[in-house]
Amino acid sequence: MKQFLSLVAVCIFSLSAWAQETVAVNTGDLISPEVKNQTVTFRLLAPEAREVWVETDFFEKSRQQTPLGEVEMAGRQRMEKGENGVWSYTVALPAPELHTYCFYVDGVRMLDPSNVYMLRDIATYMNYFLVDGALSENYFVREVPHGTVAKVWYPSPSLGMERRRMMVYTPAGYEEGTKRYPVLYLLHGAGGDENAWSELGRAVQILDNLIAQGKAEPMIVVMPNGNGAQQAVPGEYPNSMYKPSFMNPKTMEGSYEKAFPDIMNFVESHYRTINDKAHRAIAGLSMGGFHSLYISANYPDKFDYVGLFSAAINRESKGENTYIYKNLEEKLATQFAAAPKLYFIAIGNADFLYQDNVEFRQLLDRHGYKYEYAETDGGHEWRNWRKYLNNWLPKLFK
Amino acid sequence: MKQFLSLVAVCIFSLSAWAQETVAVNTGDLISPEVKNQTVTFRLLAPEAREVWVETDFFEKSRQQTPLGEVEMAGRQRMEKGENGVWSYTVALPAPELHTYCFYVDGVRMLDPSNVYMLRDIATYMNYFLVDGALSENYFVREVPHGTVAKVWYPSPSLGMERRRMMVYTPAGYEEGTKRYPVLYLLHGAGGDENAWSELGRAVQILDNLIAQGKAEPMIVVMPNGNGAQQAVPGEYPNSMYKPSFMNPKTMEGSYEKAFPDIMNFVESHYRTINDKAHRAIAGLSMGGFHSLYISANYPDKFDYVGLFSAAINRESKGENTYIYKNLEEKLATQFAAAPKLYFIAIGNADFLYQDNVEFRQLLDRHGYKYEYAETDGGHEWRNWRKYLNNWLPKLFK
Repeated sequence: MKQFLSLVAVCIFSLSAWAQETVAVNTGDLISPEVKNQTVTFRLLAPEAREVWVETDFFEKSRQQTPLGEVEMAGRQRMEKGENGVWSYTVALPAPELHTYCFYVDGVRMLDPSNVYMLRDIATYMNYFLVDGALSENYFVREVPHGTVAKVWYPSPSLGMERRRMMVYTPAGYEEGTKRYPVLYLLHGAGGDENAWSELGRAVQILDNLIAQGKAEPMIVVMPNGNGAQQAVPGEYPNSMYKPSFMNPKTMEGSYEKAFPDIMNFVESHYRTINDKAHRAIAGLSMGGFHSLYISANYPDKFDYVGLFSAAINRESKGENTYIYKNLEEKLATQFAAAPKLYFIAIGNADFLYQDNVEFRQLLDRHGYKYEYAETDGGHEWRNWRKYLNNWLPKLFK
Repeated sequence: MKQFLSLVAVCIFSLSAWAQETVAVNTGDLISPEVKNQTVTFRLLAPEAREVWVETDFFEKSRQQTPLGEVEMAGRQRMEKGENGVWSYTVALPAPELHTYCFYVDGVRMLDPSNVYMLRDIATYMNYFLVDGALSENYFVREVPHGTVAKVWYPSPSLGMERRRMMVYTPAGYEEGTKRYPVLYLLHGAGGDENAWSELGRAVQILDNLIAQGKAEPMIVVMPNGNGAQQAVPGEYPNSMYKPSFMNPKTMEGSYEKAFPDIMNFVESHYRTINDKAHRAIAGLSMGGFHSLYISANYPDKFDYVGLFSAAINRESKGENTYIYKNLEEKLATQFAAAPKLYFIAIGNADFLYQDNVEFRQLLDRHGYKYEYAETDGGHEWRNWRKYLNNWLPKLFK
């Protein structure tokens, strides 16, 4: 026991004897971010640094001139160095949300070594913390029954791929029962992958909480990978340890939409789904909204619930499968002849895709196609997509 | 389309208009680490930094004096600054392995912003890259059928907890068939959790590859959380966004071992398992080896395969459940009266637990209990545990 305690002490001295990798370190007792008395404090031990800044998603944004025009940048604040080499910055607690931040040390962006909670957005990690409140209450893991989340592989013959991956959420109780469930297909945006909704989107927490509260119907949620040339999240298929990028092959040229029945066939033959239009929903953000629009229009008898969150309407690129995007008005006419129970469009008033969505709604209006519209503040960002999901799920399958 | 391309350009200019979070950045085209011509090059853009070092698990280690004696430290090399503000360091490609590294910028440890591939060990992240070769060939994702990995919640009445989580690997083909499978319970070490084996341990890749090669039997692998006071990985249960630590409550005081039947009951009632001793295995690293030793000794009719990887023998702490650790010799006598088919002990010759394992083997030898022993170089580290798993799995259930 004595030897054991010594080793614990060695660990505390930031050394690596028992720590499980030779490069492991320990940042000691520094707490960052610390939420206390309606403030949040960020801290970083950097005795030799000349300058440390903290950048958050809730500081006032700055606008900078670039060769492409004026662009909004995340706000930064200079941290103050204490006598112990610890830089810190304290600010009033921001509004309830999942908030993200990072540090800049002598000009180099870095993560907070005291905070293991981080999210990857395309090729960039950021630390996060949650502020509790009415808006964010379902983003927290609560003491409620939890669904199972599985990384599942399926074949996609239409894409010529033996293996592709999806994340599948089955609601609490699924494994114990024989009940059949409705299905939501929930699609990510450009640069995202099958992990995006469960990580950045807090979809698992939102589902667990809404279902536990009786606000949403228990449902199976399928989160596929919408990049037609990718098998899975980069790093999790052969030779894929590249840097993820915003633009990927086979994303908005029709092949994914064409292959979507491969996903549905797998899901409906491997899960206890209810296989009719009234029990299928499809929704997505940005590129995923684009996919949802065209998948639901091309398979008009499949989905009674369609959700376009900040959808990238009219963004298709060229290719042999662009027939998927042709004759949209005709396809919508067919789709709305037996109209979906809920066709939902949501967008932030500062989104660069706002005008495209205005025009799309004008098209729907011209034909008298019914839809529900939700406009929020903010732009093309996850805080809106979490909100849209949280507000939309209670309307499904009822 | 023009607007769309402009936005892509904006992204390339490291700005955040379309990037999915306001704090997202783009590190441009910098490649790090770059493996080429039998070398690896690390790069970091840090024009204002005075000094940048790279630390890896394969540089020659240094030894440093501490108040607790001499301790081995990971090796570091100074990087060189190029005219473009990019620091770089090139070195001969290390031996086949999963290699880890990080940077130090003006004294502050940081991750490589050009490499999204990282692993968390307790509270520390490190970047990694894989070098292919005989030793590491099964650590890569290969073009083979993949098993499903699910985050599953189960009740643990013995721990008084309604919800605890485990990772469950079901082999490729499980969902399509009706076959029953043997089960391996695979346990993590101190400071670890139910994610440790599938992340740091590459267990999913090792299983997929060995099963596809016909070397290992298709099996279900259950990776529970061995910290009896934790529901799940920190951050994934209520009020758990603390900094993970090496020592956790209820880890080596008997309550987890006492509650282990809760895990087995859930698994055997929710999966198509073969429920006899010949089709159950238990193994773990460090604290998980300790758990495996005592669980198999306390439930002597349950496991025909026991694996102690760098096991922390004789490390128990006090508490009401320490009866689990009492009378070990008597318990072993019962266990070895109907001896397990394979009792396996592996350890590195530089492990600080080496002598404890010598003494434990002497105990087994004294009684003539049969076991298999594998001694490797190296210490208490993941490269050994991956190797032990990879070498041991082919011996199970045969």
